[in-house]
Amino acid sequence: MKRDKGLLIVLSGPSGVGKGTVCGELRRQDTHIQYSVSATTRSPREGEADGVNYYFKSKEEFKRMIENNELLEWAQYVDNYYGTPRNYVEEVIARGQDVILEIEVQGALQVKENFPEGVFIFLMPPSLKVLRERIEGRGTETKDLIDSRMTIAKEEIELMDKYDYVVENDEVSAAVERIKAIVTAENCKKERLIDKYKELVEE
Amino acid sequence: MKRDKGLLIVLSGPSGVGKGTVCGELRRQDTHIQYSVSATTRSPREGEADGVNYYFKSKEEFKRMIENNELLEWAQYVDNYYGTPRNYVEEVIARGQDVILEIEVQGALQVKENFPEGVFIFLMPPSLKVLRERIEGRGTETKDLIDSRMTIAKEEIELMDKYDYVVENDEVSAAVERIKAIVTAENCKKERLIDKYKELVEE
Repeated sequence: MKRDKGLLIVLSGPSGVGKGTVCGELRRQDTHIQYSVSATTRSPREGEADGVNYYFKSKEEFKRMIENNELLEWAQYVDNYYGTPRNYVEEVIARGQDVILEIEVQGALQVKENFPEGVFIFLMPPSLKVLRERIEGRGTETKDLIDSRMTIAKEEIELMDKYDYVVENDEVSAAVERIKAIVTAENCKKERLIDKYKELVEE
Repeated sequence: MKRDKGLLIVLSGPSGVGKGTVCGELRRQDTHIQYSVSATTRSPREGEADGVNYYFKSKEEFKRMIENNELLEWAQYVDNYYGTPRNYVEEVIARGQDVILEIEVQGALQVKENFPEGVFIFLMPPSLKVLRERIEGRGTETKDLIDSRMTIAKEEIELMDKYDYVVENDEVSAAVERIKAIVTAENCKKERLIDKYKELVEE
């Protein structure tokens, strides 16, 4: 028995916690979860297809999408805009499929405003020490930048209260199993099934 | 990172849906979930040990437990009393262990009154037709008794609204996986973890 509507799953957490790695592993495992496709104003790179990697938009189109409230969240990086089209998410879940969105904390909070019925998962480092080691391990950032990332991470952890679930990313495989369990459990929530079952009794 | 308290998981559903089989398979899989031990006034059978199979009580003791609100639920069958001691459940979850209670719908609703913070799972047949076939398959009941069981089952399905989750028992292995996912997801709920993580940030 399949419920009618899919779920929007929002996976977020501080920079360096491993959102991309966890999401990549989920994708590799073919879990029947769709991945959200973002809209952007940047130019397509070689091999990128419209509607697959991104929805490529002109700045005018993107600004119109913002004005018409067609984005669940958006942000500007340097000279380009990036955002999550509401349409895409609505279409996927209308087909009964679950869709996952991997996103920074500020973006996740925007999605929460615009789509409160989503399932919000905060990916958490085992400790602040481990988070610092992971950021340092990238070897790309100065000590000052690392300190400032840690300050932001602490502020973001304080925002955990806005989320439904907290998943510790101690091991990628363990974190992936927890996220899959959350998706399964959410699909068993009484609220999502009760109408179908009431029909069953009235048959 | 382990939360301090375990969960009370209440698995219920109409007679014939397969609660016992599903619970038995969960137990076989060694999922680190404890099984609730009931109190009863019936005499121990050969090989049954007090505190393992049941807590064996005199009728006077049992009635005192009822009066002192020491039972999460209780019922009388023929001449004996059966019930779930609150103490046992409280002790297990205080150790950070999850405990599961397999019980009829009326008992589950009593537990809900006395322990609303439990996780209430309704085990659902794929259809009323399948439920009827399962009850008939036992070959122990007359047509009238089967009809009356089906009427009760329909009433019980209407009570699904009191539960947190609905798990379809289409296949025992699939139902067991869903229950395990629910336990994992509940242990990732923000409410259960936030205090620990706030401490982490304040370190």
